[in-house]
Amino acid sequence: MLLRIDHIGIACHDLEATIALYQKTFGLTVVSREVNEEQGVREAMLHVADGETGGSYIQLLEPLGPDTPVGKFLASRGEGVHHVAYGVAGITEAMEEVAATGVRLIDKAPRHGSMNTSIAFLHPKDVGGVLTELVQAPERDS
Amino acid sequence: MLLRIDHIGIACHDLEATIALYQKTFGLTVVSREVNEEQGVREAMLHVADGETGGSYIQLLEPLGPDTPVGKFLASRGEGVHHVAYGVAGITEAMEEVAATGVRLIDKAPRHGSMNTSIAFLHPKDVGGVLTELVQAPERDS
Repeated sequence: MLLRIDHIGIACHDLEATIALYQKTFGLTVVSREVNEEQGVREAMLHVADGETGGSYIQLLEPLGPDTPVGKFLASRGEGVHHVAYGVAGITEAMEEVAATGVRLIDKAPRHGSMNTSIAFLHPKDVGGVLTELVQAPERDS
Repeated sequence: MLLRIDHIGIACHDLEATIALYQKTFGLTVVSREVNEEQGVREAMLHVADGETGGSYIQLLEPLGPDTPVGKFLASRGEGVHHVAYGVAGITEAMEEVAATGVRLIDKAPRHGSMNTSIAFLHPKDVGGVLTELVQAPERDS
């Protein structure tokens, strides 16, 4: 079902400072910046590698406020890995397959993700404590 | 410098149960099992995807005891993502490049990692709260 590790979502207090850190330390470059009001984040995608089934990225996430999911995560856990996202060929089919195994979906229908993707989150309590995201990325899979 | 997201290290209480969860939910299969006494873990590598510059894996980590690094992580943070590992072409050169940017290395010399790799950990406080590992995987890069 999984095509790739699509991205690792990392929560940070200061998006620009953390972009600068990843650029300086690892030479990563930003390929997309977005504000996602629905999810309450300002975010940047940094390209790590291409692959036969889509690329891999680091997604840096700065909350738009303390009452957002990422804002609450930062308050309780501090900066660090927020979620892990896997590429899938079809988001609806993947959601159905996962739900059939008994894992709960946070999103009942696909949502808009970074770089024109369709995404859905799975409940971390059902995936060994890892907030897990499925990503269908039509533009990156072609 | 970075060739790929090599693996995501996930701390768990019960390795076999978590392997079974990832197999059932996502269809992932185990390609390697090891006990690393030096790091105090029993671990399994689950294959996610191949790539032009090496594959990507999920690494499940069960501590050998409560006084190990992963045992202490579980006690304070619970199950979840423990570290993120990036593939590099040359571990020594990558360590030098990273150290030159001011990021502290936990390992002053490369250590033995899963599947005959050479690895080094970077200090999470210098990488935005993420325990970060560099991995040179000669067998996987060829």
